[in-house]
Amino acid sequence: MNAEIIAVGSELLTPTKVDTNSLWLTDQLNAAGIEVVQKAIAGDDRVRLAALIAGAVERSDLIILTGGLGPTEDDVTRDAVCQALGCEQHFHQFLCDAIAERFARMKRAMAENNKRQAFLIDGAEAIPNDRGTAPGQWIRLPSGKAIALLPGPPSELKGIWMAEIERRVRALAPPLAIATAHFRVAGMGESDLDQLIAPVYTPYTNPVTTILAAPGDVHIHLRARCPEAAEAQRLVDELGTKIRELLGDRIYSEDGADLETAVGRRLAALGATVSTAESMTGGLLGQRITSVPDSSTWFRGGLVTYTDEMKRTLLGIPADLLSRHSAVSQPVAIAMAQAARERTGATWALSITGYAGPSGDNVGLVFVGLAGPGFADARQLHLFGDRARIRNVAATLALDWLRKKLG
Amino acid sequence: MNAEIIAVGSELLTPTKVDTNSLWLTDQLNAAGIEVVQKAIAGDDRVRLAALIAGAVERSDLIILTGGLGPTEDDVTRDAVCQALGCEQHFHQFLCDAIAERFARMKRAMAENNKRQAFLIDGAEAIPNDRGTAPGQWIRLPSGKAIALLPGPPSELKGIWMAEIERRVRALAPPLAIATAHFRVAGMGESDLDQLIAPVYTPYTNPVTTILAAPGDVHIHLRARCPEAAEAQRLVDELGTKIRELLGDRIYSEDGADLETAVGRRLAALGATVSTAESMTGGLLGQRITSVPDSSTWFRGGLVTYTDEMKRTLLGIPADLLSRHSAVSQPVAIAMAQAARERTGATWALSITGYAGPSGDNVGLVFVGLAGPGFADARQLHLFGDRARIRNVAATLALDWLRKKLG
Repeated sequence: MNAEIIAVGSELLTPTKVDTNSLWLTDQLNAAGIEVVQKAIAGDDRVRLAALIAGAVERSDLIILTGGLGPTEDDVTRDAVCQALGCEQHFHQFLCDAIAERFARMKRAMAENNKRQAFLIDGAEAIPNDRGTAPGQWIRLPSGKAIALLPGPPSELKGIWMAEIERRVRALAPPLAIATAHFRVAGMGESDLDQLIAPVYTPYTNPVTTILAAPGDVHIHLRARCPEAAEAQRLVDELGTKIRELLGDRIYSEDGADLETAVGRRLAALGATVSTAESMTGGLLGQRITSVPDSSTWFRGGLVTYTDEMKRTLLGIPADLLSRHSAVSQPVAIAMAQAARERTGATWALSITGYAGPSGDNVGLVFVGLAGPGFADARQLHLFGDRARIRNVAATLALDWLRKKLG
Repeated sequence: MNAEIIAVGSELLTPTKVDTNSLWLTDQLNAAGIEVVQKAIAGDDRVRLAALIAGAVERSDLIILTGGLGPTEDDVTRDAVCQALGCEQHFHQFLCDAIAERFARMKRAMAENNKRQAFLIDGAEAIPNDRGTAPGQWIRLPSGKAIALLPGPPSELKGIWMAEIERRVRALAPPLAIATAHFRVAGMGESDLDQLIAPVYTPYTNPVTTILAAPGDVHIHLRARCPEAAEAQRLVDELGTKIRELLGDRIYSEDGADLETAVGRRLAALGATVSTAESMTGGLLGQRITSVPDSSTWFRGGLVTYTDEMKRTLLGIPADLLSRHSAVSQPVAIAMAQAARERTGATWALSITGYAGPSGDNVGLVFVGLAGPGFADARQLHLFGDRARIRNVAATLALDWLRKKLG
């Protein structure tokens, strides 16, 4: 069973306005076992909207329209649905009375144009809207497909959904149990990862595998849907086991935790702490570690040494080490991590030094250092992308190294 | 002239993923005098996507597709465009060589499936993508309509747009002169700002005023479109002058520079430097200052002191000051800024200490300190929102205080 969501309103076609309703609706629909296969945003143009609705009705089982139910000429959703279905709408006094009553309760006069909201598409069921003047409409087509016309303001939409629409939608969908798994992997490109695991997941159409990639961070979602919960779980476990075998300790979390949280939990479990010495990232690594609530349990502090002089004075890196190897070198990265560890008394310390660009010969050359009990080393990285990406991936790989080292 | 934007990728049909590319593209298209009349989000389903594209080509003059150009089987945009247009695509060695070269530069092996990205739709122009492996494609149809296939990652999309696509798109649109102005304001809420300037801008339909708000940071865009360039400029100047009078030194930039850049430029012009002492923000302030290229000219370093012990050892804050006032207090914020200034030798130093939550009695209580030549003070802030927002707004207000102090 699949659905399309169509958000109506020219304001949603401006550079600043995000359609957040569809995210919330997607969550609701997925929970009911219904997949969202397409979303659209349409302006207040009746003809275009009617064409969009007609196409959606042909392709999909359930069409959710939000917005365009207001009292003005701009509000074209009702008209467009009529045009798409080739049917009519009529004025209903009982709807008009409900709207008038609402205005009376708010001690406001009902405007003449609010009467437009009392028109019901022939064959549609009027759905009461406790939080606004526009009633929703629910249409079952002879094919079994359904169309919902819902108000656009988020609070009205959520109210009418929970009170009235959700159970109608759930009655459409065959009862399906859903099982999910979620793997997160740092330090691998999307295509490398996909090449590794595609042979394992492509034979499965259930679970569905979705791969989401951010720089240096890839998320794998599995979702199985079956009439029986046990079978959905078995399928997810079966595929999950195969993926886990291939990725091993490259997986940093299986419960949706981000890398910072995974590292923090591991440090907390070991009673260990971490500090940082940052050059190129300017504080980003510390900022990410402390983005996790309660990070004061495992994070002590950091030294941001953006110049050679600061590396000497704040971290005590010997001047001759800097002049012999330059600040972007393996020996300096090691010395930075060791110095941060000593100066903060943390169990572990991470360092980052490199060239983030945007210009220069060595943009993307980065050294990440790690020092800990009886351990000090640094790794050379070659990163690509813009300044923000290079800094962010360097921090990700630093955190992931510590995570693996903690075991 | 109108356009449709189609974002491709099943991950964009999940409950958490927002299509932000289309907002940026809408801004770019509007600036070229092109109206966005519909937007869609499609999953990785070739047949559905092809139907969507075929419909868009019928309805609209320009179709912008983003995403789905990657190397995996999931990436169906090229195939879907071929199906919609009834044409074919072919492998081109020159595209494959460019991809291989890119991998060689990054010192990585090119995966076999990256060869998929070397297929060009018959009749399409290959558009180089400096920031990723997927080239874009630009198709002019016999009808004069155009289709652009662009990469999904925002940095790649923006890069290819500015370098290659923008001028192709502008060549399609009728010539309209455009004048713009751009004011950025820190430390004011959107509704406060809007209440202040709405009486001035609402009488104007040309220029169009758009207000974009992020926490602690509001951007005001004016855009006038006229057949004559001089008239567009006159209109923008007229309204711009009125807005400038109302906002005064709350405006931190008029050329699109972000706050970090505005502060950095001012420091560079004065030959001054800055350092940081951070507690609650964990390095965020330093990270933001160093997000600007060449920030080593004005940023020296920072001390991230996340615990009381670190405040004592790394910054030398007296233990009795901490015990008397607590780490989140005006005296400690001042002492942190002074100590950072002394230890790094910077002209100015900023400090941040506070409670970012998510739980606790004093979440949102923050002190920002500033020390400079003959100056040391701290301000108390009461911020709301989640942990990320509180940290980010605190850093914004710290930077804005320094900016105003620099004059």
